[in-house]
Amino acid sequence: MFPLSDEQLLDALQRMGIGDDISRATIRQIVALSGELEDVAQEPYIHLELGNPGLPACELGVAEECRKLAEGIANQYPNIAGIPRLKEAGSRFVKAFIDVDIPGRFIVPTVGSMQGTFTMMLLLGAREKRRDTVLYLHPGFSPQLLQSKVLGLKSEMFDIYNYRGKALEAKLEEILSKGNVTAMLYSNPNNPAWTNFTEEELEIIGRMANRHDVIVMEDMAYIGMDFRSDLSRPGEAPFVPTVARYTDNYVIFISGSKIFSYAGQRIALVCVGPRLGMRNFEALNELYHMPTFIDCFIYGVLYCVSSGTAHSAQYALAAMMEAAVEGKLDFVDMCREYGRRAAETKKVFTDNGFNIVYECDGDGRPVSDGFFFTAGYKGLSSAELQGRLMRHGVATIALSSTGSEQDGVRVCVSLLDSPDKLAELDRRLKKFVTEIEK
Amino acid sequence: MFPLSDEQLLDALQRMGIGDDISRATIRQIVALSGELEDVAQEPYIHLELGNPGLPACELGVAEECRKLAEGIANQYPNIAGIPRLKEAGSRFVKAFIDVDIPGRFIVPTVGSMQGTFTMMLLLGAREKRRDTVLYLHPGFSPQLLQSKVLGLKSEMFDIYNYRGKALEAKLEEILSKGNVTAMLYSNPNNPAWTNFTEEELEIIGRMANRHDVIVMEDMAYIGMDFRSDLSRPGEAPFVPTVARYTDNYVIFISGSKIFSYAGQRIALVCVGPRLGMRNFEALNELYHMPTFIDCFIYGVLYCVSSGTAHSAQYALAAMMEAAVEGKLDFVDMCREYGRRAAETKKVFTDNGFNIVYECDGDGRPVSDGFFFTAGYKGLSSAELQGRLMRHGVATIALSSTGSEQDGVRVCVSLLDSPDKLAELDRRLKKFVTEIEK
Repeated sequence: MFPLSDEQLLDALQRMGIGDDISRATIRQIVALSGELEDVAQEPYIHLELGNPGLPACELGVAEECRKLAEGIANQYPNIAGIPRLKEAGSRFVKAFIDVDIPGRFIVPTVGSMQGTFTMMLLLGAREKRRDTVLYLHPGFSPQLLQSKVLGLKSEMFDIYNYRGKALEAKLEEILSKGNVTAMLYSNPNNPAWTNFTEEELEIIGRMANRHDVIVMEDMAYIGMDFRSDLSRPGEAPFVPTVARYTDNYVIFISGSKIFSYAGQRIALVCVGPRLGMRNFEALNELYHMPTFIDCFIYGVLYCVSSGTAHSAQYALAAMMEAAVEGKLDFVDMCREYGRRAAETKKVFTDNGFNIVYECDGDGRPVSDGFFFTAGYKGLSSAELQGRLMRHGVATIALSSTGSEQDGVRVCVSLLDSPDKLAELDRRLKKFVTEIEK
Repeated sequence: MFPLSDEQLLDALQRMGIGDDISRATIRQIVALSGELEDVAQEPYIHLELGNPGLPACELGVAEECRKLAEGIANQYPNIAGIPRLKEAGSRFVKAFIDVDIPGRFIVPTVGSMQGTFTMMLLLGAREKRRDTVLYLHPGFSPQLLQSKVLGLKSEMFDIYNYRGKALEAKLEEILSKGNVTAMLYSNPNNPAWTNFTEEELEIIGRMANRHDVIVMEDMAYIGMDFRSDLSRPGEAPFVPTVARYTDNYVIFISGSKIFSYAGQRIALVCVGPRLGMRNFEALNELYHMPTFIDCFIYGVLYCVSSGTAHSAQYALAAMMEAAVEGKLDFVDMCREYGRRAAETKKVFTDNGFNIVYECDGDGRPVSDGFFFTAGYKGLSSAELQGRLMRHGVATIALSSTGSEQDGVRVCVSLLDSPDKLAELDRRLKKFVTEIEK
């Protein structure tokens, strides 16, 4: 029964080897912890911690994958550069929804965007000796911070909370002018804050990338899910905002996990700006004996790390992207369900006295409803809020673990798929408030 | 028409950016080069260079994969540690064919064995500061050498040709006693030489690994394909030889690519010796905040590099391994086809005056017929032999590119699936001989 006592929570934290600070736990550890505590409480948790898709996988992809497997593709190594059909579909997808021209040669499948950002950091960390640092525009997806660490790269980071709009320029200039940064990384829409950089901010980022020759890694895992604009119509404005309009130094990451609910098959695309793709970096040339950045990436790095991506999943993604481009599969509309769930869930939180931590974008507009939002409660620290909610049967992620300097938690709405769950959430938040206001 | 002229070959080498030394080309570059030269010659090549499976994918795997996709697994992130069913199937497989006890906890799927060895090197390269070197027992699969290089690790290597039997001990002692080696890597059967370490040699390797606390990475991509013994009966001797009988410091890599002709779906297992898996390395603990080696591998490294392996492929491998363990799928017998092709192909080569370079094992027995063999011709260097064969329409890999110090080429027989191809190979080799003996 909830709430659990402080002792019950601490006991479980110790048993799981997390220590006494819950806010230092990884997402996977929180998932495991809530599983453990379900046994203690003898009641199910409300899982707001893990970003599993809450919709069924796109049927078109499943059908194509099965068809190709039956045709006999499983015995042949997939082309490491990607099957031609997927490269072409990716190129059309990027043109239709982002309005950016990237030929198929520069579009390469990876084993999810995790492999995409990992391998790109591996390459970018070696392009120039003095550039050994990745800059994170936080808050962000904490495993990406682990990626540079595991690779032995240095990292810099700041919380964009206080650097929106024009304030971003001075902050970037201060960091990038040191000359040690090889790449900067952010997600748009942002995980966890669901903020989106404005055109003004993207222009600043692009200009700074040009001035200091830094490569921008733009993670579009949630592409199209800024529901304030209708980004669903292929080939028609408005298009998805991107730094690619302001610099050639960009790499865009598009994953099938969220937009097509295809997380299980680990398939994504790395889309390299064509001018960047054709550059020759001396240090990479020496290591890989290949003259272009894109070839070093494909035949050097990707060859090394997994020799490509599962054959059938490439066909699935190709089929889904083709259908999206041709207007036969409205993935944005499918994902609007997350927006609906977010609106309802936010209301439950705010009705109980919570505030939305990252509330507005650089232009002052409230952020969109979408896959995630951030919630705070009257000055409680991230750790305290996360721990108390956990005791009350609500699993979340501490904002402090996402590189944020604000107090609060990340709420993922993907699995909140019934009015019953929302009502139960409301009851638990009310108990949380009652306890705290005593 | 073959033979092409020296100029035609050199021109193509330049066009492909390989330079003038064909023997420095990677396998993929040789594939691309032979494609380019097919246009020049207006005749197809005989492809002995790429190790693509030459048999259809195992139907059982395909059927299971389609069934699970239809059931709706594509939207859920797969467990990074592997789905329980595959972990259990892997454990039973290892017991049935290698006679080694490894609980499922220590058996983890990866995106092919390429991801397996890459991620294991990433982890082993960080386990102790002074241990920054991987030792390769060559000849070997050249992309694995690139893996340590890309990771910024140092490498040592020697050609086992002159160090078979007892001679292996002094050589290993000489290298390992320096204390900088973290792991040693070899494949059994060997790619490209198709040699197999004898029990005496495995005992030496295991004893040296213990004495110097070095981890043995044993790549079993071609498990069961030493057809000199019948290794096909689950649970019955003879079992596949392994260093695991002589040391706890081992990791075995088993891939679905060759034994089940499943290369396209990129699925393999990393099998960590349980005692190694439970060890606590201080440096890893610091980096990953996890106490055991196996947890650092799964929740640290694998989480980072791709967040696991495609869901459906895990089910496919589980189904195939279960059937193999239960005696319903004789994968060894299926692969005997490669042995038959090798015997015939070897005869074509030796009848034309070629010799088998790696001819015998440490106990003096001739190596088995299998997926690869090595061929030399009267003292021609690797580069010269490879180049001349290429001009005559026969694509191979230079032994020098595999870390071998011997002269010759690697021949892969997997795609030689008809008497017509063999007869054409014979005609081309005869022309090669005529030209050279003029």
